[in-house]
Amino acid sequence: MNPTITTVPEKEHPNGFWMGSQRQFRCFIPFKFSRRATGEKDVAFKVLYCGICHSDVHMAKNEWGTSVYPFRLGPKVQSGRSSWRWVYSGSCRACDSCKEDLENYCPKSILTNGAKYHDGTVTYGGYSNTMVADEHFIVRIPEKLPLDAAAPLLCAGVTVYSPLRYYGLDKPGLHIGVVGLGGLGHVAVKFAKAMGAKVTVISTSSSKKKEALENLGADSFLVSGGDHDQLQGSTGTLDGIIDTVSAEHPLLPLLGLLKSNGKLVLLGAPEKSLDLPVFPLLQGRKVVGGSLTGGMKETQEMIDFAAKHNVKPDIEVVAMEYVNTAMQRLLKSDVKYRFVIDIGNTLRATY
Amino acid sequence: MNPTITTVPEKEHPNGFWMGSQRQFRCFIPFKFSRRATGEKDVAFKVLYCGICHSDVHMAKNEWGTSVYPFRLGPKVQSGRSSWRWVYSGSCRACDSCKEDLENYCPKSILTNGAKYHDGTVTYGGYSNTMVADEHFIVRIPEKLPLDAAAPLLCAGVTVYSPLRYYGLDKPGLHIGVVGLGGLGHVAVKFAKAMGAKVTVISTSSSKKKEALENLGADSFLVSGGDHDQLQGSTGTLDGIIDTVSAEHPLLPLLGLLKSNGKLVLLGAPEKSLDLPVFPLLQGRKVVGGSLTGGMKETQEMIDFAAKHNVKPDIEVVAMEYVNTAMQRLLKSDVKYRFVIDIGNTLRATY
Repeated sequence: MNPTITTVPEKEHPNGFWMGSQRQFRCFIPFKFSRRATGEKDVAFKVLYCGICHSDVHMAKNEWGTSVYPFRLGPKVQSGRSSWRWVYSGSCRACDSCKEDLENYCPKSILTNGAKYHDGTVTYGGYSNTMVADEHFIVRIPEKLPLDAAAPLLCAGVTVYSPLRYYGLDKPGLHIGVVGLGGLGHVAVKFAKAMGAKVTVISTSSSKKKEALENLGADSFLVSGGDHDQLQGSTGTLDGIIDTVSAEHPLLPLLGLLKSNGKLVLLGAPEKSLDLPVFPLLQGRKVVGGSLTGGMKETQEMIDFAAKHNVKPDIEVVAMEYVNTAMQRLLKSDVKYRFVIDIGNTLRATY
Repeated sequence: MNPTITTVPEKEHPNGFWMGSQRQFRCFIPFKFSRRATGEKDVAFKVLYCGICHSDVHMAKNEWGTSVYPFRLGPKVQSGRSSWRWVYSGSCRACDSCKEDLENYCPKSILTNGAKYHDGTVTYGGYSNTMVADEHFIVRIPEKLPLDAAAPLLCAGVTVYSPLRYYGLDKPGLHIGVVGLGGLGHVAVKFAKAMGAKVTVISTSSSKKKEALENLGADSFLVSGGDHDQLQGSTGTLDGIIDTVSAEHPLLPLLGLLKSNGKLVLLGAPEKSLDLPVFPLLQGRKVVGGSLTGGMKETQEMIDFAAKHNVKPDIEVVAMEYVNTAMQRLLKSDVKYRFVIDIGNTLRATY
């Protein structure tokens, strides 16, 4: 789980972009490298689209990325329209987590970026024209889903879908809160709505109200914190909350929004510990839980669900050479809501 | 949920003990009062035993007590060997919690001590020779359970039984940790063992090892904190933890003990917030949850389970006049593990 940042040669027949450290500000630069040999159960394929995740900016902080590609066949893989799996290139396939289709919780899971694969080769991520992956980590993308929009689903999508399912927040008629309206939050609204929930968006910024209600289809909006805090009036109304905020923030007002047996699911990881008031947990048998992406089986289920219910993230498709600008804009939350790099048309064309 | 501390007359044909505030140190003093009239669905009964809960010491801090009694019949109640329910004298019977047999989470639940009943009368608790209770709040005590030992089960027992069930920690073969070896912790060990779990006791004091393993039947013992901390060597081994500690304490080492999907259930309520490290929650989809006693249906289920599996708390039976000494000893954790007042033989006899 500790990506290595490597100093790499620049602009020499690049076939990918990698984070270089030879400049004052770390940024992505062209980089030539070879993928590992295509093994018996591997798929080698051409990359068409790759999503940009906030974590790509903060790779050194040990978070995760998103990637999606159509593939060409490796020795043992059937034909189809598929995508490679984003975060993990591999896992041990033997531990309790792997046996339960939860490769994402495997202690030996291999990250797509900056990790070492079983054979010792480095996993250089998806800002690249080709990829080799174990067929187990391949997801089939239904025809109904555009490939560019499918890209962020493989990370942001399953990251919100999985806890909605696991924590029992997927029943029609439930009232679900979504805290934070970024890459994760906006797809959380869409998935929860598709599951039949009433959805309330909770944000510190009242400027997002129109967007939440009119564009994303949320049912209501609450401003949290500050002089215009509206949470107090909605005490005990929510069955569950998907909290996508990575910054430090108070949990007490969110716990107050929950009904008895309510679940507050944290998806962002603030560097510092949060204050956990215990009595509100006891009084209503509430839980604070976490969730980290999803396993391969659930990712396929999520993609099929998204195709069936027309759940698509809002994306901005950009060219490969725009990546560093995109990163800067991402840092300022200046994107609705995910950048996707058009690798197929722009990586080879540019360099 | 806010008990009133009342200044009461002292030693005038007392029929109960109530906390008086006219002395420098608050203590229990004899007090004469009338119970409310026995309604259509009420049970009036003689009190034989009443458990002393740590919360009785801290009533002013808004916690709870334990009481158990054999009963005599009110107008509409069947004959039997039963006990009155400890914490709650009533609840609204109409809210979502009440409808789900979770009267303990009813926002209008009426505490046994220092609360006002529906008719405006004060609920003076169980240190008293008689009691009147709604039949709904009556538990039947199976013949196999001694009444004195049954008393603490009605609070401490269901307080640990309920979360073991609710959080799915009741499956044979699971590995359960119990933090803290007091009134709650020692019955948690016994219930978890009766459910078929492997039980590890976690305590800051290595002096409790022999007691945990030999007297309570725990399978293993870990010292937490300090120079001889043993938690590090048991990372990722527990399916769930019942944490009975009310003092402020670190959650990170406990979260580390959990496997993926593990549950840390807090039963004690420190006054200050605890530090919640978020990344460990995400990495293994762990939860921190709370639980507060149990509903009437589950309390009956717990009592029946205890009788069937011979789960009995370790108690020290004391006379009514010993109550203030018992309170002092309780504050020093000088009891294994619950005091039970022999009301039937000592309240009338003494005064």
